[in-house]
Amino acid sequence: MEKIAEKLAPELSKLESFLTSSLRTEVGFIRTVSEYVIKAGGKRIRPILLILSCRLCGDTSDRYLPYAASIEFIHTATLLHDDVIDDAKVRRGKSTANVLFGNPSTILIGDFLYSRAFDLMVSEGSREILAIMARATNLLSEGEILELIMTGNVELKEEEYLEIIEKKTAVLFSAACEIGAILGAAPSDKREALSELGRSLGLIFQIKDDVLDYTSSEQILGKKIGTDLKEGKVTLPLIKALREANRRERVYLERVLRKKAPAFEDFERVRGVIEKYNGIAYALSLCLELAKKAREELLAFPDNPYRQDLLALIDYLVERER
Amino acid sequence: MEKIAEKLAPELSKLESFLTSSLRTEVGFIRTVSEYVIKAGGKRIRPILLILSCRLCGDTSDRYLPYAASIEFIHTATLLHDDVIDDAKVRRGKSTANVLFGNPSTILIGDFLYSRAFDLMVSEGSREILAIMARATNLLSEGEILELIMTGNVELKEEEYLEIIEKKTAVLFSAACEIGAILGAAPSDKREALSELGRSLGLIFQIKDDVLDYTSSEQILGKKIGTDLKEGKVTLPLIKALREANRRERVYLERVLRKKAPAFEDFERVRGVIEKYNGIAYALSLCLELAKKAREELLAFPDNPYRQDLLALIDYLVERER
Repeated sequence: MEKIAEKLAPELSKLESFLTSSLRTEVGFIRTVSEYVIKAGGKRIRPILLILSCRLCGDTSDRYLPYAASIEFIHTATLLHDDVIDDAKVRRGKSTANVLFGNPSTILIGDFLYSRAFDLMVSEGSREILAIMARATNLLSEGEILELIMTGNVELKEEEYLEIIEKKTAVLFSAACEIGAILGAAPSDKREALSELGRSLGLIFQIKDDVLDYTSSEQILGKKIGTDLKEGKVTLPLIKALREANRRERVYLERVLRKKAPAFEDFERVRGVIEKYNGIAYALSLCLELAKKAREELLAFPDNPYRQDLLALIDYLVERER
Repeated sequence: MEKIAEKLAPELSKLESFLTSSLRTEVGFIRTVSEYVIKAGGKRIRPILLILSCRLCGDTSDRYLPYAASIEFIHTATLLHDDVIDDAKVRRGKSTANVLFGNPSTILIGDFLYSRAFDLMVSEGSREILAIMARATNLLSEGEILELIMTGNVELKEEEYLEIIEKKTAVLFSAACEIGAILGAAPSDKREALSELGRSLGLIFQIKDDVLDYTSSEQILGKKIGTDLKEGKVTLPLIKALREANRRERVYLERVLRKKAPAFEDFERVRGVIEKYNGIAYALSLCLELAKKAREELLAFPDNPYRQDLLALIDYLVERER
């Protein structure tokens, strides 16, 4: 990932300037808070995907800037609202905006970023791209709501889990890649291939995120682990365990999911049950399958440095430890 | 107002169907909550303004539907986030969404409505209209944030208050009228006149809202009164009082504004100080001035039933008791 970011240094550096200048407003407080959250060390995965996609399709211009910025703004807006909802304290190793600036400001700065994203795109964008982004953002919010109403639901099926992460994560990844294809004036089969590539990468990203929440540590991850269990979010490793657990284990898992603040021992014991039923391995094997599918999408493109970077990005998303 | 709504019954009835069908989603919960808030008895002032403006400019088509719906969605989204922020319990005589469905759902349904609004407009809209709406929505969120950071600020100047209500309310009213003008293919001077008309009406609406928060009752208004004082929001009647109060009164007003939960006696006493310095009359006289300006904007248009309705709407907004 560092290597890819290094190769894209000129593009990413322009993006950082563009992000800053796009936050222009007369209201100093908005700039302070939104710069804090935008500059809080996000990995810029979605913008990188967009840039690699348009470069892969032959576009060498700076036209990626407003779209990459909009996608990062929309992504950041959802993080802000998520952190309010989950009462999260730490993200990317730093205090969350809700801790520093309070819930009201954080909700409203999220709204500011959403609307600024559309403002940016309308000034620059083709109707086609606008339609993709509006649809993606609306599905994203559907995904967030689906996730919320499925909280604590031990009956959650794998396909329902996949629908949630498709909407809340994969749709925006897919939009990033498809917009890149549109900027590169790619024919429809290549555009479809990139859209599918983005979708697979989004699914991998989210499944891996959900795995790391059980297997990583706060020090490495930059945010608390065990939060999904604590918040009653049923993710793939747990779904696998719930599906195969015996009656006694199942009753126990259900009880922990319903607890407001499960103890660390509960987390450890749930991890044990997940381990017993290979929940982590199961989730990771789905990532590997999706990675295979993602690599196949890239067969439609000639071998070149951008294709190689995208291949490396697939591996990175599967293997990342934070 | 009832008369205007009656005359526009065919348009408003189509709008209601359009609003309902625009909330289509696979997720039943989203439909339940968003229909609850959309159908909770809003006055549809912004859609009515948009319809009257396009009719005034000669457009007799149904093209107002997606824009009127989008504006109502965006307005409703801001109400949802406002009610979470203010922990409001009752609006339009009914329990707020945050009371019925909780803060997390209410925040996310707000996001859903914002993004659905853009989705609707992108499918239908001209780039010109999209630009107006994106800009208006972004300014609206700036206004909300400005209001938040000015909370409890006894130094708030009248011009700062006017900037806040311009952004948080007048910009969307103005957009409604301007979009009507665009749909009616009005020349730029008429478009400008309608945009200004909307701006004045938005300012009147908000100033009157702030007055009613001191002078009305929960029974009439359908929501608690005295909330601005309770939330530390410094509005025009109080600004006038603060400006002219003697030292003792000023110290008292500052203390009440800083209280988390001022007693009813405080509210009564603050009303007394506002009364002494003619704060209500001062705010209402500004409404009258703005109404005069609004009527002048309409001189650019030939006399016809739509112009008469807009004139009646000006009077309604000045005189409304709820």
